[in-house]
Amino acid sequence: MKIAIYGYGNLGKGVECAAAKAPDMEIVGVFTRRDPATVKTYGAPVYSADELMNFKKEINVLVLCGGSATDLPEQTPELAKHFNVIDSFDTHAKIPEHFNAVNDAANYSGHIALISAGWDPGMFSLNRLYASAILPEGKDYTFWGRGVSQGHSDAIRRIEGVLDARQYTVPVDEALEQVRNGKNPDLSTREKHRRECFVVAKEGADLARIENEIKTMPNYFADYDTTVTFISKEELQANHSGLPHGGSVIFTGATGQNNEHKHVIEYKLQLDSNPEFTASVIVAYARALYKMRRRQMTGCKTVFDIAPADLSPLSAEELRAKML
Amino acid sequence: MKIAIYGYGNLGKGVECAAAKAPDMEIVGVFTRRDPATVKTYGAPVYSADELMNFKKEINVLVLCGGSATDLPEQTPELAKHFNVIDSFDTHAKIPEHFNAVNDAANYSGHIALISAGWDPGMFSLNRLYASAILPEGKDYTFWGRGVSQGHSDAIRRIEGVLDARQYTVPVDEALEQVRNGKNPDLSTREKHRRECFVVAKEGADLARIENEIKTMPNYFADYDTTVTFISKEELQANHSGLPHGGSVIFTGATGQNNEHKHVIEYKLQLDSNPEFTASVIVAYARALYKMRRRQMTGCKTVFDIAPADLSPLSAEELRAKML
Repeated sequence: MKIAIYGYGNLGKGVECAAAKAPDMEIVGVFTRRDPATVKTYGAPVYSADELMNFKKEINVLVLCGGSATDLPEQTPELAKHFNVIDSFDTHAKIPEHFNAVNDAANYSGHIALISAGWDPGMFSLNRLYASAILPEGKDYTFWGRGVSQGHSDAIRRIEGVLDARQYTVPVDEALEQVRNGKNPDLSTREKHRRECFVVAKEGADLARIENEIKTMPNYFADYDTTVTFISKEELQANHSGLPHGGSVIFTGATGQNNEHKHVIEYKLQLDSNPEFTASVIVAYARALYKMRRRQMTGCKTVFDIAPADLSPLSAEELRAKML
Repeated sequence: MKIAIYGYGNLGKGVECAAAKAPDMEIVGVFTRRDPATVKTYGAPVYSADELMNFKKEINVLVLCGGSATDLPEQTPELAKHFNVIDSFDTHAKIPEHFNAVNDAANYSGHIALISAGWDPGMFSLNRLYASAILPEGKDYTFWGRGVSQGHSDAIRRIEGVLDARQYTVPVDEALEQVRNGKNPDLSTREKHRRECFVVAKEGADLARIENEIKTMPNYFADYDTTVTFISKEELQANHSGLPHGGSVIFTGATGQNNEHKHVIEYKLQLDSNPEFTASVIVAYARALYKMRRRQMTGCKTVFDIAPADLSPLSAEELRAKML
């Protein structure tokens, strides 16, 4: 099967790497809105986004690697008119609206699409669904981190006097422990996660003011226990240049005539590279879309609609023999 | 939807409890090969297995709760001729053969079937598949326990001089730690799990001989570090009457141009009741079968073939809004 990559930031690079490991996939090219001469890939040919429509017959699935804020709400429905598409739209509250727009376009044009592939939304969502279907009266908890939040890092960078910053979201150990022990606690925002900020300030900047502006920033930091550590540019580069992330979905429930038996289900990710893992999930779901389109399916799907076997390059027989 | 339970041991009881919690399920009855007057349920009516064929029109999915050794290889293909059926067949090596027999029967009669629902095979299998589809060059490890192995407990009970016994399979902490830290160790059987045996001996029995027979028993114990503790009947009843189990599927893999980014995916279960959790998984998959049969699907399926959304009583819209 042949995929193409639309947008070449961290996610697009991750898709190129992941597709190279897939035994059944070929990359037609990377399509960019920048000057193609300025985009250096690991080997995939680069084309201008303006040329995309010339490749309609060659691309089985177009992987959209733009951002959820402004790119995908426009691009995914628009490109679903011409291609089978997949994205990693991650604004949870706007998923129903985005789904409807993409579904209309894909159904009308006879293509298949999948939105919100990745790990949250994505693998974490799947685990919430599986666990709640098995233990319908249970309770789920999602913890994120320890990992870099790009949105929170950006928010710090916008503060006057800040040159660069990296923010880690960290689950609170005591909360994790309580949940894992099946105590079913009610946890406030502050009790679940804390925030660690590493900040490079301009020379002579008022550090106390910067620290105060971070800690009191509504939505981003005010509701959390936040620590601010000022470091040098070199230290940021040396120790905080990666994009690790992860977290856990923990589901607790009970069975038995009197709920006398407790059960804890945990799905945990520890990721050295958030964008590369997200890209790897997307590539597996791109494979599923290709298989489903060959079965004449159209319209917008989510991870909830995909039978797991469709994600694998192995045959149904091989899967039953090796993995069941 | 209406289900019926065929066989009423620990698993059948668990199915009755789990179905009672499902908002969309009703139990037609429990069918038993014993004298129905001797079977006491939590409330479901009890019928003789001989009456089953009189209920063909009333049962949407028949849940087979027999054992994998002799019951299911006969019952599942035979009953798939007349009902939509689901089982928890767990003899991994014989799954392909069992699948083919059930698939032939279900396809011929126009029913749908699902084999090997539960947690291993079942949820653990799913997690092996998802992870290997995302990180195709990765490596998976499955650890079981701490939990009661009924097969190993039975093996001890067959030793001369043993009144009763309970065997716990326990993952070796050092091995778990190495795998979770992404060290990709090659582990022998002995390095992965140890076995703890609690034995009630007959008065005057030769304890040294019993201990030696356990520790040297081929396949069951000889390849493991095994501890044997003799306890009283009362202590066994007080401290070892439950059937807890669980374990972890841990998958490690790498991404990036030079595999420079490591990832660890772990799915972990801690279950107070192995049969009740297995039953809860079966009930969710019974719902999926009912939905799929209404879409005219036939033949044998496994957990790999079921789209997650079909497991839930919620609509696709609700799932997208609440869980994605």
